[in-house]
Amino acid sequence: MRERVEEYVKSLQNTIVSALEAADPSAPPFRRDSWVRPEGGSGCSCVFSVAFDESAPIPGSALDKETVLEKAGVNISIVHGTLPPAAIRQMRADHASLALPEFERPGGLPFFAAGLSLVIHPRNPHAPTVHSNYRYFEISEHPSEAEEGKPPRVLAWWFGGGSDLTPSYLYAEDAQHFHQTLKSAADQHASTLYPVFKKWCDEYFYIPHRGETRGVGGIFFDDLSEGPHSRFDKNQERPKTPDELFAFVVSMGDAFVPSYLPILTKRAKKSYTPEERRWQLLRRGRYVEFNLVYDRGTKFGLATPGARIESILMSLPEVARWEYMSEVGTLEDSEENKLLAVLKTPKEWV
Amino acid sequence: MRERVEEYVKSLQNTIVSALEAADPSAPPFRRDSWVRPEGGSGCSCVFSVAFDESAPIPGSALDKETVLEKAGVNISIVHGTLPPAAIRQMRADHASLALPEFERPGGLPFFAAGLSLVIHPRNPHAPTVHSNYRYFEISEHPSEAEEGKPPRVLAWWFGGGSDLTPSYLYAEDAQHFHQTLKSAADQHASTLYPVFKKWCDEYFYIPHRGETRGVGGIFFDDLSEGPHSRFDKNQERPKTPDELFAFVVSMGDAFVPSYLPILTKRAKKSYTPEERRWQLLRRGRYVEFNLVYDRGTKFGLATPGARIESILMSLPEVARWEYMSEVGTLEDSEENKLLAVLKTPKEWV
Repeated sequence: MRERVEEYVKSLQNTIVSALEAADPSAPPFRRDSWVRPEGGSGCSCVFSVAFDESAPIPGSALDKETVLEKAGVNISIVHGTLPPAAIRQMRADHASLALPEFERPGGLPFFAAGLSLVIHPRNPHAPTVHSNYRYFEISEHPSEAEEGKPPRVLAWWFGGGSDLTPSYLYAEDAQHFHQTLKSAADQHASTLYPVFKKWCDEYFYIPHRGETRGVGGIFFDDLSEGPHSRFDKNQERPKTPDELFAFVVSMGDAFVPSYLPILTKRAKKSYTPEERRWQLLRRGRYVEFNLVYDRGTKFGLATPGARIESILMSLPEVARWEYMSEVGTLEDSEENKLLAVLKTPKEWV
Repeated sequence: MRERVEEYVKSLQNTIVSALEAADPSAPPFRRDSWVRPEGGSGCSCVFSVAFDESAPIPGSALDKETVLEKAGVNISIVHGTLPPAAIRQMRADHASLALPEFERPGGLPFFAAGLSLVIHPRNPHAPTVHSNYRYFEISEHPSEAEEGKPPRVLAWWFGGGSDLTPSYLYAEDAQHFHQTLKSAADQHASTLYPVFKKWCDEYFYIPHRGETRGVGGIFFDDLSEGPHSRFDKNQERPKTPDELFAFVVSMGDAFVPSYLPILTKRAKKSYTPEERRWQLLRRGRYVEFNLVYDRGTKFGLATPGARIESILMSLPEVARWEYMSEVGTLEDSEENKLLAVLKTPKEWV
């Protein structure tokens, strides 16, 4: 499974980066940074960013000069090493099986993690931000405890991931397309998956201090393995074996480009006003608030000694804005308020 | 003491806002928002911000059009109510005395809190951001448990606060002036205070995932009361009684204007380049990272139901910027790198 996941995320990264580059042929290509983790493993960050130019006027009419993307990263990492007991204890909140005594080993346990993680912040306020992440995690017994002549047993493994859309302006047809594409991909594996993961996404990407979700959702899942799962009834149909779950994750990863690219290309060249740009930057402030205050992946990453901070914080937008008591979006009938209504009360899109 | 603190923070707020307004007479005045907390108490937020104009070119030469401040808030709050047991438990980390059994009351205990909190983000990259906060906190016995005919006893009280400077470009003479002004004010009360609180400030405003302090420091203190204090030896001279501690806090509050205004006026009109503005916005990104990921006051505020989010997040800059693997500040001899060196290894300024 390790090799299959590694091979898949590498090929998915290529597919996605190529599709994004093809969507804006005159823009500079993504920068590709391969890195090696001294403690074990490696990764590759593919990042798009443009030169700083705060003096550039907002074009509106001269949109042809602008790049489609403002900042984007499509990263993969395939890492392994020893998970300290404190980290295992911290992971228990989301992975009930780790409470078993075999995970209490004082020196920690070997782990393997492979995944793809992307965040795309387009320049145009009418084009939504998107985030996706698919990952596989494994914890094995310590090699000294393995049966002689045999490789260490895998003690726990799971898949996690998801994909969610964060518009600054609400286009119901975009939200529907995004959700429908994810639903169709998930339905191939079990009709239970989309409804459970859609709800989980709305719960996860919630900003309590704002009383808002981060965006219009998508899917979110974690701890998918063979054993019982708190989000599913015992007899509910769902992929369970490694093969079934890998196939499900591949379908979801493959659904990324068709779920997002048509939206991006449709909205990227729409003309916009400085006021719309302002609203977008305020929404990006909320994105920063969610990622730094609540996102478990970000918090876990920041607390991990030796983690690659540049890759973890790549999810942050190029520019974000905070205004005290901003009046933008407060008018009842405004386009901004239409988005807020949906963030305060998540909708069923399909 | 409640009344003395309330009166003092009100007058200090006026003094500071007037001084800031006088420093930029052609700028719009601060907006003054008085608010009432339904659960008890009130406050006043005085906020400066300017209209959004992303299309404005960076002047460099046309600096006369710019306001000195970009975003600033000088807030006071005087609140009271019931502190739930969970909040008391959470406060124990910083206030050892709360571990006593009398604080375990299931219904919680009455509290009173009054303080002033300010953050000033100037527009010019050569003018530093500053943050100050001075506060008084009290926990009393439940009125039903008070001796008949007597007011409820105060079970615990303390003062906390501090003031720290966050430049984007390092001017040693500014850091020295800031620290020297605070030190002179503190020295009037005990020579032990500045060295202890300076060190505490460097420790508190540290961003572990960046290996940097937030700025060039200042002073930070908490839990100052009559009892023993973990930062002081038992026989070390320091203010202890309510009168002595209030007098110390008044000296520190009064030192704010002379510690900061001369720096602000000296740097606010310096010409700057788009590259310097860019570096300032990147530094403001770090400011956001500290406040949202680590600052205890912000985290406590965000987790408090019914808290005034607009006042809590007023500390965030108007605009912040994140670049992947930014090359700004990486040149050994650059002005940017001169700042970074000091953030990585805090200096003694006086």
